[in-house]
Amino acid sequence: MSKITPVILCGGSGTRLWPRSRVAKPKPFLPLVGDTTLFEATAARCSDPATFAAPLVVTGTQHLAHVEAQLAGAQVIVEPSARNTAAAIALAALQLDPQDIMLVCPSDHHIADGDAFTRAARAAAALAADDWLVSFGIEATAPETGFGYLHRGEAIAASGGFKVARFVEKPDLARAEQFLASGEYAWNGGIFAFRAGAFLSELESHRPAIAAAVRKAVAEGHADGARFHPGAEAFGAIQSESVDYAVMENTARAAMVPADMGWSDIGNWQALRDARPVDSDGNTVVGRAELVGCRNVLVESDGPRVSVIGLENVIVVVDGDEILVTTDAGTQLVGKLSGAANQ
Amino acid sequence: MSKITPVILCGGSGTRLWPRSRVAKPKPFLPLVGDTTLFEATAARCSDPATFAAPLVVTGTQHLAHVEAQLAGAQVIVEPSARNTAAAIALAALQLDPQDIMLVCPSDHHIADGDAFTRAARAAAALAADDWLVSFGIEATAPETGFGYLHRGEAIAASGGFKVARFVEKPDLARAEQFLASGEYAWNGGIFAFRAGAFLSELESHRPAIAAAVRKAVAEGHADGARFHPGAEAFGAIQSESVDYAVMENTARAAMVPADMGWSDIGNWQALRDARPVDSDGNTVVGRAELVGCRNVLVESDGPRVSVIGLENVIVVVDGDEILVTTDAGTQLVGKLSGAANQ
Repeated sequence: MSKITPVILCGGSGTRLWPRSRVAKPKPFLPLVGDTTLFEATAARCSDPATFAAPLVVTGTQHLAHVEAQLAGAQVIVEPSARNTAAAIALAALQLDPQDIMLVCPSDHHIADGDAFTRAARAAAALAADDWLVSFGIEATAPETGFGYLHRGEAIAASGGFKVARFVEKPDLARAEQFLASGEYAWNGGIFAFRAGAFLSELESHRPAIAAAVRKAVAEGHADGARFHPGAEAFGAIQSESVDYAVMENTARAAMVPADMGWSDIGNWQALRDARPVDSDGNTVVGRAELVGCRNVLVESDGPRVSVIGLENVIVVVDGDEILVTTDAGTQLVGKLSGAANQ
Repeated sequence: MSKITPVILCGGSGTRLWPRSRVAKPKPFLPLVGDTTLFEATAARCSDPATFAAPLVVTGTQHLAHVEAQLAGAQVIVEPSARNTAAAIALAALQLDPQDIMLVCPSDHHIADGDAFTRAARAAAALAADDWLVSFGIEATAPETGFGYLHRGEAIAASGGFKVARFVEKPDLARAEQFLASGEYAWNGGIFAFRAGAFLSELESHRPAIAAAVRKAVAEGHADGARFHPGAEAFGAIQSESVDYAVMENTARAAMVPADMGWSDIGNWQALRDARPVDSDGNTVVGRAELVGCRNVLVESDGPRVSVIGLENVIVVVDGDEILVTTDAGTQLVGKLSGAANQ
């Protein structure tokens, strides 16, 4: 099998992890779990030269300095504007040989089990080589309403993978509980494997305007060392669509590989606490803190000492001139706070 | 009636209001309720020249700068060391004429109803002029276990006051509930009125060693402008005892005047929240904050913005390099935190 080219997407703002995640230094570039940043961990997961080729990073100008600081020498496609994942992946596909297998990885997720990830990546790559468009089907462990789901279809012989019977948008709780109970549904974690040429031909079938505009932006673009800058005008004219909506839900060749790898999108502070090692009381601390009579408390401080007494299921985050104190349920609302909205 | 001389005691550390109250700037000198500090409010309560003479402040060297900054021109007795209230009051009594009526006021309490305070002060002064040693009996509004109680005895004719049948040390909850239900008990708030000579003669009867040592410290002391410095060696030899224990529980002339004046000792953060104006959700904020879905939350910040989501009955205090987050029940433990203990 030829090597897999990681395509690492660095977009998004991570406002639900405010005030740690800020516009100027968002979620992928922070050491949220352990000592490495989510972006560094994403690159490290795809760094075994026996399996992976050098990565290709797709990011915006506002994140370029972080990318280059955290992954020296990386090949980077610098998006002149944000046009969602269909266009971002197409930019990468056009930099590759049509026969290359690309593994699209968001850079703001946590994966606890790197070996399971590698096994799933290899299985996905084998299917992609047969021109399947492959999603990682993340083993669902809770009736999450914030994720899309993949309904598993028939097995694809000798591959370990399955056809996707159906893509399901974010369900309500009742449906999410049905999905979980049935065992037939997996979370759509936004990790994909494609043959570059196969992806582009599906995009041309289902979204010819996007495909044409991305080709134009590449034709009008220019390289600058390890950076490639697509033409801003052509790229800016592209319709923003997710790869799920533009391609995956339309193709007849959608497949999935099961992936049980301790995945989390670290979608809010509660999810981050769940991804971190905790002490016997369920508490986890980054920075200086004293906890008395606390359970399931996350404290993260960039300086001041935080003393907490008697609280359960609470998050305390100190970042410069902003302090957040929230219940677990409240973590869903963090992105709507004045501080998060007006950075 | 001759004028009353306020004797304002400035001691104590207020560690249960840490991290706002610090060794270097403790509770009396902070604007905890409204814009004036507790010390300033204490002085202002006793400032009507129709009723009060100029105050006499008793404090330690570590608080002297705060006293002089917040009450310009004050006569100050500077204790060379802390020897509790019996000695502090004796120092003041020896600076006065034996016929002077002194009103002893702690400087770290909050009194919402200044007029009620003045009425009680006048009633207490009238009794003191007849050589009663008078405690303010604070109307008990809850079965507090952190206060001493006064058991009301027989009425003293035409005075509005009562003999004290008994002083009771801090009771357990069951007894405190009995006290509250009986209606015969009041809190001992540490506010006293004495004729200076009567106090000294009672002190000499019941604690002759303290009385003699204070006289010696005064004889060996020296004035420095508006400051008086007792002799350090003699004062340091004094036994630390409260005025309650040394004098009030022993004298046959203990009286009390009822005082229903919105009193609070601001003994912890929960008590402070109760003393402050709150909004319709019971929240109170000093500094920059955004509260979402909160009830009975106090936020106090000296700088950073504090965003709180979904919490009830919680206190959040930001002071420089220390941040406290506690439940109401936890406020009792604040003084034992590492930060409060090792300032």
